Amino acid sequence: MVLIMTEENNKKRKTAEDFAKLQREISISEFFEKNKHLLGFDNPTKALLIVVKEAVDNSLDACQDAGILPEISVKVKSVGEDRFKVSIEDNGPGIVKEKIPQVFGKLLYGSKFHVLKQNRGQQGIGISACVLYSQMTTGKPTRIFSKIENEKKTNIFDIHIDVQKNEPEIIHEESIDDGIKEHGTRVEMEITGRYRKTQSVDDYLKQTAISNPFAKISYNINGEKMTFNRSVDKLPKEPEEMKRHPYGVEYGMLQRMLKNTNSRTLSSFLQNEFSSVGSKSANEICKIAKLDKNMKPSEIERENIGKLLNAMQKVKLQRPPTDKLSPIGKEELFKGLKKLYPNAEIFTETRSPEVYMGNPFIIEAGIVYDTNLPKEEEVQIIRFANRVPLLYQTSACAIYEAITETRWKNYGLQQVGKGVPIGPCIIVVHVCSAWVPFISESKEAIAAYPEIVKEIKLAIQSCARDMLTFMRRKERSKYETQRLHIFEDYLPIIAENAADLAETKKPDIKKVLQQVVKKELVEDEFRAFESGEIFEKPKKKASSED
Amino acid sequence: MVLIMTEENNKKRKTAEDFAKLQREISISEFFEKNKHLLGFDNPTKALLIVVKEAVDNSLDACQDAGILPEISVKVKSVGEDRFKVSIEDNGPGIVKEKIPQVFGKLLYGSKFHVLKQNRGQQGIGISACVLYSQMTTGKPTRIFSKIENEKKTNIFDIHIDVQKNEPEIIHEESIDDGIKEHGTRVEMEITGRYRKTQSVDDYLKQTAISNPFAKISYNINGEKMTFNRSVDKLPKEPEEMKRHPYGVEYGMLQRMLKNTNSRTLSSFLQNEFSSVGSKSANEICKIAKLDKNMKPSEIERENIGKLLNAMQKVKLQRPPTDKLSPIGKEELFKGLKKLYPNAEIFTETRSPEVYMGNPFIIEAGIVYDTNLPKEEEVQIIRFANRVPLLYQTSACAIYEAITETRWKNYGLQQVGKGVPIGPCIIVVHVCSAWVPFISESKEAIAAYPEIVKEIKLAIQSCARDMLTFMRRKERSKYETQRLHIFEDYLPIIAENAADLAETKKPDIKKVLQQVVKKELVEDEFRAFESGEIFEKPKKKASSED
Repeated sequence: MVLIMTEENNKKRKTAEDFAKLQREISISEFFEKNKHLLGFDNPTKALLIVVKEAVDNSLDACQDAGILPEISVKVKSVGEDRFKVSIEDNGPGIVKEKIPQVFGKLLYGSKFHVLKQNRGQQGIGISACVLYSQMTTGKPTRIFSKIENEKKTNIFDIHIDVQKNEPEIIHEESIDDGIKEHGTRVEMEITGRYRKTQSVDDYLKQTAISNPFAKISYNINGEKMTFNRSVDKLPKEPEEMKRHPYGVEYGMLQRMLKNTNSRTLSSFLQNEFSSVGSKSANEICKIAKLDKNMKPSEIERENIGKLLNAMQKVKLQRPPTDKLSPIGKEELFKGLKKLYPNAEIFTETRSPEVYMGNPFIIEAGIVYDTNLPKEEEVQIIRFANRVPLLYQTSACAIYEAITETRWKNYGLQQVGKGVPIGPCIIVVHVCSAWVPFISESKEAIAAYPEIVKEIKLAIQSCARDMLTFMRRKERSKYETQRLHIFEDYLPIIAENAADLAETKKPDIKKVLQQVVKKELVEDEFRAFESGEIFEKPKKKASSED
Repeated sequence: MVLIMTEENNKKRKTAEDFAKLQREISISEFFEKNKHLLGFDNPTKALLIVVKEAVDNSLDACQDAGILPEISVKVKSVGEDRFKVSIEDNGPGIVKEKIPQVFGKLLYGSKFHVLKQNRGQQGIGISACVLYSQMTTGKPTRIFSKIENEKKTNIFDIHIDVQKNEPEIIHEESIDDGIKEHGTRVEMEITGRYRKTQSVDDYLKQTAISNPFAKISYNINGEKMTFNRSVDKLPKEPEEMKRHPYGVEYGMLQRMLKNTNSRTLSSFLQNEFSSVGSKSANEICKIAKLDKNMKPSEIERENIGKLLNAMQKVKLQRPPTDKLSPIGKEELFKGLKKLYPNAEIFTETRSPEVYMGNPFIIEAGIVYDTNLPKEEEVQIIRFANRVPLLYQTSACAIYEAITETRWKNYGLQQVGKGVPIGPCIIVVHVCSAWVPFISESKEAIAAYPEIVKEIKLAIQSCARDMLTFMRRKERSKYETQRLHIFEDYLPIIAENAADLAETKKPDIKKVLQQVVKKELVEDEFRAFESGEIFEKPKKKASSED
């Protein structure tokens, strides 16, 4: 035994029993109180953004799930140095009274974590972390108003979080008659924050309007009002819950699924609990694993779970279903962007679904080409994950990687090395999936899985090709117009002189001119591009064929 | 009310009651199982490193706290494709039987979270996250052996984590006679992992030996054995627990402290619970906040807590105590590096303590200049936080920022723009603090607080200046040697001829030569540099003055 027994050390020397006295549980609220930077609350500007973002994301999720066209009101008011009152109200389905304290006053509590479905929220941390941040910085409770359909009263709660227990503490509670009109939820909190125009609430709401063209958002910042109206009057296809694909499962999860399943045989377990597994694939998995397909799932022993897992990875299976995701849509993205950049040329793309680690995902992209934007600066990058704008950690994101790895000179933009391209453009990318792999809890950047980066590249390159075609056409059109002008200027004179010389009648040269340069045709195409009619053409065709 | 009542939507439309059924608690184990990449378990190479790292860090913390010179044995054995058995044993104080299951089988459980003290571990997540990862990837339980002093038996537990409850599940339990020799703990687990030489276990242990020169670590990787022996035979000064400084407190925390304190007056509360507050400062705080210094802390009302907090930030206070940290030490860092790079020139520095957000911290740095290292490549960067090597996310770290913002051309190294300098060097930086601000739970990079970056710059620049002085001396010495050779070659001839001409005796020119070039003096200085004697000189002086 090597002990250092100097007097000083001996005094402080700790035994196993001393340690035992200190060892205790840490609540998740305590953890995030101490580590608030992990949630993004590391500076006041970001904090103000996050509070608005978490509340609005929850509102949009709730409205969409309930089949309600969202109407959201955001109010931000400065009430002192670095101090803001924030209020977010929606017309969602509301929250049942008993659940309100926990939804807002307990970290890791929610409806989305255990379900594999494309949602804005994933973890059950977001809004309660904001309540925690508010009480950490101002000591004020968060006030929640909520009214559900067919009920008369609006319930009001003032909530704190008991940090040591990670449980809500109800400071005040009442029910009133004239609260929320039809149904919905309002959150009010006071926080330490800082307001600035860029990379903050304004940008977040503007971009949210792009990715949620079916939402109406009104915004009041210190009395200054703005409204983002709908550019689409219909909710998108609802994302659906999906089963896990066998390729995306790990040992611990499989073990738990086997233990908790209601299926009575291994074969039915595989078919019921996983996507892309029919009876044929199920039997093949059992065969490869050398397990009886009729055995009871809960009776499979430890070492056989490993064999089963291996077999599940080895067998050839169809891809997971990809129709349960809800992308923005090529046309909707175009319209959303056109609303904000009416004078720009816009090119959009929605890719077919792909799969990473057993998770289906869809990439969408858009390029806004606007000669009013600075020509000699880096393009602006707008990133979305499940329709939520991402404003921080751009360079740590899969989207950034895909953009900088593309050779933009091939598409008519400047680029220095592997840098962000330079030109009067905005590049927009949307990643949607039931499980977006964020690099941190603050959900600011997407992990660069090779499958995801590849798809992003293909999506932006598709838009870039359209942009290049457009730019070439525009150049050609410019050239043709110049050519036309030359003909227009000189041909009549030549024609007249020639007619004089030949002593014949002056010919009608208008038709000849049109034949030569096909000017009108080119211009027509442009009009279609600029108005977005280009998307409506196929529809008209379809209906005329009925 | 805006409802979209298409048939399809109506079918799926969710009400507040539907949501209520889905809303439930998420355990922290479930959270990290789904988000294992947040803990760094996103690739098998890193996973193998993390398992060794978490166990060794815990062992070193436990030994140091118990005043035991650490002896740690690390065994890593490949047992299949991408599969490893890992075993880490220490001679620490051991863990009392009742606490073993929770220490290893419950996330957010530990002795260090609630204490403000320089420790390797901070959160109570590390080792239990490894147990979770092991069961997720192999389904095997983790086996723990532990024996405490003065007890005969070694307790053995096989532990799983019940992920849904975040509670340990004891698979097997026994006590044996011939387990661990004196006292200590052994952890054995099987994981999915991958072994490589660099940026993995080998590097981690090598660097741990530098920052913990008092530890003996033996390492067995697939039968190949290595030992890192001590370069110092004494434990460093034990880091001590400290009180919070008023400048580093926030509303929520102050509120809780007021509620839980045993102090009977506000004035005594301020003096007892905070560092750097005496009776004079306490009374001044009360005066600024317009609060009675004799009032009961628990009776201070909400709005007055805000006033108190403001007053605590406004009053002029001494810095927090900085003698409770335990840096490696200028001399110990030199010795640790010399052991690994015996032929190199080494320059080290330990800065005086500084403070960020009320937290004291100390920066240490070292530069290893070794002509055997590649001359045309970027220097190697070795980073430590509380003696723990950091191997990933280098470019996201405050240390990287400080290095790349230094103008290395001024110190004799090449540098392209704001890049990592180029030359035959290794730059070592150690950040030690009771609260190291990591940018993520995986603790791979330190947040770039300006105060921290500034101190790192000063520390490396101090080493860089010494290196420059050394390089200049070396050049001068080379020049002087050449000069001496010229004199040595020609002077005797000149002297002889001159003596012949003057018809006198040939003079003794050796003394003259020495006077001219002072060669020996310069060389002596070098010997001191190269052997590290330079550190011992002041000591000898001190003792001779006694």
